[in-house]
Amino acid sequence: MRFGIFGSAQAKRGGPDVDSGAGFREFVENNVKAEALGYVSSFVVEHHFTGFGQISATLNLLTWVAARTTTLRLGTAVITLPWHNPVLLAEQVATIDLLSGGRVDFGIGQGYRHNEFAGFCIPMEEADERFDESLEVLLKAWTSDTPWSHRGKYWQFDNVVVEPPTAQKPHPPLWMGAGRPASIKKVADLGYRLLLDQFAPIEQIGERIALFKAEVQARGRRFDPMSVAVTRSINVAMTAAERQKALETRMAARRRVHDLAQRPDGQNKSTIMTYANTLEAAEAGALYGTPDEIVTKLQTLRDVGAEYVLLNSTGGIETLRRFAKEIMPAFAGEPSRR
Amino acid sequence: MRFGIFGSAQAKRGGPDVDSGAGFREFVENNVKAEALGYVSSFVVEHHFTGFGQISATLNLLTWVAARTTTLRLGTAVITLPWHNPVLLAEQVATIDLLSGGRVDFGIGQGYRHNEFAGFCIPMEEADERFDESLEVLLKAWTSDTPWSHRGKYWQFDNVVVEPPTAQKPHPPLWMGAGRPASIKKVADLGYRLLLDQFAPIEQIGERIALFKAEVQARGRRFDPMSVAVTRSINVAMTAAERQKALETRMAARRRVHDLAQRPDGQNKSTIMTYANTLEAAEAGALYGTPDEIVTKLQTLRDVGAEYVLLNSTGGIETLRRFAKEIMPAFAGEPSRR
Repeated sequence: MRFGIFGSAQAKRGGPDVDSGAGFREFVENNVKAEALGYVSSFVVEHHFTGFGQISATLNLLTWVAARTTTLRLGTAVITLPWHNPVLLAEQVATIDLLSGGRVDFGIGQGYRHNEFAGFCIPMEEADERFDESLEVLLKAWTSDTPWSHRGKYWQFDNVVVEPPTAQKPHPPLWMGAGRPASIKKVADLGYRLLLDQFAPIEQIGERIALFKAEVQARGRRFDPMSVAVTRSINVAMTAAERQKALETRMAARRRVHDLAQRPDGQNKSTIMTYANTLEAAEAGALYGTPDEIVTKLQTLRDVGAEYVLLNSTGGIETLRRFAKEIMPAFAGEPSRR
Repeated sequence: MRFGIFGSAQAKRGGPDVDSGAGFREFVENNVKAEALGYVSSFVVEHHFTGFGQISATLNLLTWVAARTTTLRLGTAVITLPWHNPVLLAEQVATIDLLSGGRVDFGIGQGYRHNEFAGFCIPMEEADERFDESLEVLLKAWTSDTPWSHRGKYWQFDNVVVEPPTAQKPHPPLWMGAGRPASIKKVADLGYRLLLDQFAPIEQIGERIALFKAEVQARGRRFDPMSVAVTRSINVAMTAAERQKALETRMAARRRVHDLAQRPDGQNKSTIMTYANTLEAAEAGALYGTPDEIVTKLQTLRDVGAEYVLLNSTGGIETLRRFAKEIMPAFAGEPSRR
């Protein structure tokens, strides 16, 4: 198995006496430490207008992380294409990829939070169409050495060659978040890699991996188990009280995101909105417990086909260190069974 | 006097055997060395679709430089506002400012190259209006701790608070390129700092500084000579042949940029298009010659009021090292006479 980290940093607006940058700097230091501990990647979110200071300029924070690391894969989970001018985005991704010696894993999505669509004044109904058009432009930008034009519904470019080039050819690996069968088929269709969310219970993870594998193979390609990354929240909780507290914190965080994401009409159909927010669901979707319990859960996850896990540590770097020392070796050493 | 560096990096699209990233990595290393040599800032250009690989994702390259340095001011010269979503731009600038501990010097402009307007399918006639609207949004984004909305001609945002906050309050210093009297008055009016281009002959530099000083003082503010940065190309050319070669290279580079910038109707009225591209003009606008000749030219520049000079070294880091060792001490030690 392989392990990466998944997460965000916080930098809240505050008074002049608050060091808003502390969360960002700690995030960078934790990434440096994670690389040394054997984590292979860091996948970072992009969010806007949360009011609690989540990372917005993901590619800039990742660039800083990149400059401080040497092997860590630099993942986005995910960049929401509808917010970005696709040519500027192609240039930004290429610049990091080039400087980092080809370490970008570019995760993309169409957005699911109502508060972001509302803030950018972009109708949520345009998300699909905008995603498809942006992706088309990104691919042209990365792969065309001769001038091209684009006359789309949302973007127009005339006779351009986009520089710099990416280091990875033809472009950095693309990852897409998906949950519904139709979305998973789309990822297989496009030939990209699959990001599975941190909330789905293990059985659902298994079903999604099995579907993706079948869809990839049905298209005549070999299935690589490392082309699926599953995010899991982790917390080493030794006592029942610690576990209870960790689960409650997690449920509160989910409510907060749910409130930002939900549409005024309550009709947000994103997969991420479909999970129950109960103690049982939180427990089923996360790696919370003693080291032995985490090992058991991880083995179950592996048994359903997950070979690449991104850990979202709610216990900070200490949990990641403990996992790396006490648990990772037993799993990292085994060869993939596929 | 204070000295910074000004410049670009190159990363050309090429075949699979070309290391396109070499120019970018060398640029970063030169910035690290420049900081150690006593240069206080690095101002970096933004350009698109040049065909010769100029920096496009300026803020990403600068982020990498920022992560490798500790005191160097991180300047843009300039970010062209009409290309960017102003909220995304505000987030990017704030992220670097926060991570770097408040080292961003944010230089902005409205664009002058026809090939960029054409490539982005933005009419050049909208440049002024787009610049003003973007600036308004940027300032709101940086300074508002409570939700705000914007209903503009080009951009709309609804009920947003932009995060993270900048480290510098109320926001990073703003710099604007200007040449014409009306533009210089606008910079004074806005209370920003002034970037003077690398082509204007010394007498014109003097006139512009004098006008800016008068306009600042007419508005009841103290004039700070360090609020004007003058860019100069530098080359230590010991022999007449070396100097001739350096001047010819410079003229060829100017022709290349002229061709990208000129409109099909030949009516590009930007200041930068008005300078003659002759040997004499190149000589008058640049610091080319023996160390003694450079000292004399620099003294002339200082005599007309320039106290902050950004060096664009066509001789690479060796010239910057030589300047720092042999010339900078004599000027850096003197107090400002204003």
